[in-house]
Amino acid sequence: MAGKRIIIIGGGFGGLTAARALRRDDVVLIDRTNHHLFQPLLYQVATAALSPSDIAWPLRTVFRSQRNVRVLMEEVIAIDRAVRSIRFRESPPMSFDVLIVAPGSRHAYFGHDEWEPLAPGLKTLTDAVLMREKMLLAFEEADRRRAAGGPDEQLTFVIVGGGPTGVELAGALAEIGRKAMGPDFPTLRLEDLCILLVEGGPRILPGFSAELSAKADAALSGMGVTIRLNSLVSGVREDGVMIDQEFVPSAGIIWAAGNKASPLLETLGTAQDGAGRVKVGPDLTIPGEPWVFVLGDAANCTGEDGKPLPGLAPVAIQQGRYVADVIQHDTPPAERRPFVYVDRGMLATIGRAKAVAQIGRLHVSGLFAWLLWCIVHIFFLIGVRSRFRVMSEWLWYYVTFKPGARLLFEQPAIVHNDRATMHRSNE
Amino acid sequence: MAGKRIIIIGGGFGGLTAARALRRDDVVLIDRTNHHLFQPLLYQVATAALSPSDIAWPLRTVFRSQRNVRVLMEEVIAIDRAVRSIRFRESPPMSFDVLIVAPGSRHAYFGHDEWEPLAPGLKTLTDAVLMREKMLLAFEEADRRRAAGGPDEQLTFVIVGGGPTGVELAGALAEIGRKAMGPDFPTLRLEDLCILLVEGGPRILPGFSAELSAKADAALSGMGVTIRLNSLVSGVREDGVMIDQEFVPSAGIIWAAGNKASPLLETLGTAQDGAGRVKVGPDLTIPGEPWVFVLGDAANCTGEDGKPLPGLAPVAIQQGRYVADVIQHDTPPAERRPFVYVDRGMLATIGRAKAVAQIGRLHVSGLFAWLLWCIVHIFFLIGVRSRFRVMSEWLWYYVTFKPGARLLFEQPAIVHNDRATMHRSNE
Repeated sequence: MAGKRIIIIGGGFGGLTAARALRRDDVVLIDRTNHHLFQPLLYQVATAALSPSDIAWPLRTVFRSQRNVRVLMEEVIAIDRAVRSIRFRESPPMSFDVLIVAPGSRHAYFGHDEWEPLAPGLKTLTDAVLMREKMLLAFEEADRRRAAGGPDEQLTFVIVGGGPTGVELAGALAEIGRKAMGPDFPTLRLEDLCILLVEGGPRILPGFSAELSAKADAALSGMGVTIRLNSLVSGVREDGVMIDQEFVPSAGIIWAAGNKASPLLETLGTAQDGAGRVKVGPDLTIPGEPWVFVLGDAANCTGEDGKPLPGLAPVAIQQGRYVADVIQHDTPPAERRPFVYVDRGMLATIGRAKAVAQIGRLHVSGLFAWLLWCIVHIFFLIGVRSRFRVMSEWLWYYVTFKPGARLLFEQPAIVHNDRATMHRSNE
Repeated sequence: MAGKRIIIIGGGFGGLTAARALRRDDVVLIDRTNHHLFQPLLYQVATAALSPSDIAWPLRTVFRSQRNVRVLMEEVIAIDRAVRSIRFRESPPMSFDVLIVAPGSRHAYFGHDEWEPLAPGLKTLTDAVLMREKMLLAFEEADRRRAAGGPDEQLTFVIVGGGPTGVELAGALAEIGRKAMGPDFPTLRLEDLCILLVEGGPRILPGFSAELSAKADAALSGMGVTIRLNSLVSGVREDGVMIDQEFVPSAGIIWAAGNKASPLLETLGTAQDGAGRVKVGPDLTIPGEPWVFVLGDAANCTGEDGKPLPGLAPVAIQQGRYVADVIQHDTPPAERRPFVYVDRGMLATIGRAKAVAQIGRLHVSGLFAWLLWCIVHIFFLIGVRSRFRVMSEWLWYYVTFKPGARLLFEQPAIVHNDRATMHRSNE
């Protein structure tokens, strides 16, 4: 099938990798934003360590020299399998020969979507910038109250979910709060700042070995993070959160618990799991559609252990390469070798010179794991410029403890407006 | 008067310089944002060449090691001369012994404030980020229309005002549009992009010599900018602008014509000029208040030529130093030498390796002027980190023509919301 048109929905790790590997055919890469986002470092934008432009790249620039790829900034509202075309919010429908569906996921609120505007997750640049605004505004407001002789209320930030994202956020918040913000807010004492990490299970970083999650637990506690295990959030309000029937007042609530695949997937009309992920075959296609592939967070792809593969960047990247290979060679369904995920290990950073790494049998923590983490992440960034910038930012912060991007835009208005927007986008 | 309390309203060039120079007394520095902004480079954020964090610095970090300065993020709504105190939007009133008023200015719409949301100016980080969003969204939308087989409408951006800001914006837009965006939007042809610079007077850069403004004119035209002199804007709409009774459809209108000093100044109850600037004496104080100083854009301070000094950073900086000196020495009104502005020249950049410089008798243009401009601006940035970052950004762009910060946040919503906000803030 020569000169076929391949539509890729989503410019995340999976979609981007596939588009880069598809060198011959007509490729249309569609994303609702104009950039590819390096999500693993998004929490550093949220905590003002990095700027948005350090970890995001305009898709058009990425594909500037790859002429067979056309980038379209649009929102896909439906996939019509019957007529092999997709529908957009604005543009007229577009038909495809091959479809790669990689729209990613949002956070899951376990049936309480009304919590999202009050306890936003961390998936987009907007999420990160709003989280940064919220954190900085909370400090400024506390300072104003103190200066005006107000009561010494604690400044509490609650992070829901003890997975890598939650742990990295908690660590970064504790560090920026105590080491970076502290000195700039003489009116606030360190003990006034409380970072609360809430995990439903018996330990944080459940994906890691018990030993490493214990190390992470100890490291976080040492940085002043309060960890509550086996605790469930039963309610979220503007001014705080209910944890096991106890109300905890808080200046900011961040949601890092569970994913829910994009609602777009429902229009595929095929089997989905509880998290909304599409159940795909060993070649990542959906039943009866040998040329419709689903990748990354959007796919429920069974691993060798019989469990679905985790929603990690390496999984999406390897799936992107696999799918591109199948398409380039027009491999008929019968001749396709099943996709196999090669697990190169897991990393989670806790703070400056603190991290945990689990690579096969190698379990390490501390400075070495942290350096490993830095190197791996720098390596996966796109382009010399970003690698260089991020490296210098980290070095600068490592030495001075002055984060680079602690800017409040003159627009608390936006926080509210956009909360509303996020909420709508969820309905 | 020992241990006196000095309140500074505004963390711009004037307020910041004064606060840094006041080493002894109790200083409270108030700003509605949390950062000092290097406005002369704001247009580079608007045109995606620089990131916000490259040209803005948290005030608290700037004064971290200067313990006598307290930073307060608040909005001042009134100055009560009678009781020597100021009123805030949220905090309780605060009294002062010495007051430095440096709230800066917004753009003047010549009695048509309703134009502001449609043709925003460029004063704050928010303005710049929204302008960037608007420009990038316009390109994406044009591309969507073309891809969908729409008509080949021109993509027109109108800049109102041929002063340094307007000229720098026009040049930067033309450059980013043709050299940087061009290659990324194969559907758009260069001739589809129109940058229109509208100036009411007979020549652009009226502050410069006729010879230099002719050079700037030629350089801009060479870059594809259309310049309309002796033209007045008589109407602004969402979809275009009326220029001398002719309607010009446009995707974006940017206002760079004239300033209007902060409305806060009216509460001082003293003489103001047509632009709302407070008329100050030779020691920058207002009549009858030897310890209330007004600086920068907010002040109408007569220069040696009998005309009011221009609203330039160097003026505000020198005024800040002067005022701090008077306050540190408790100089009685009678003994104060009048403030004298030392004009070190004017610079305006037009594009890559193009600029004009007027330093006393020295009038230069082209590469040399541009290098001079780069050096001067790098020099005036705060801190090694920013100087280093901005320099590398410029070098990178100079070599690759790939601007660094071309990111759209997933929030066209914000553009509208914030327009509304800006509008409200203007009422």
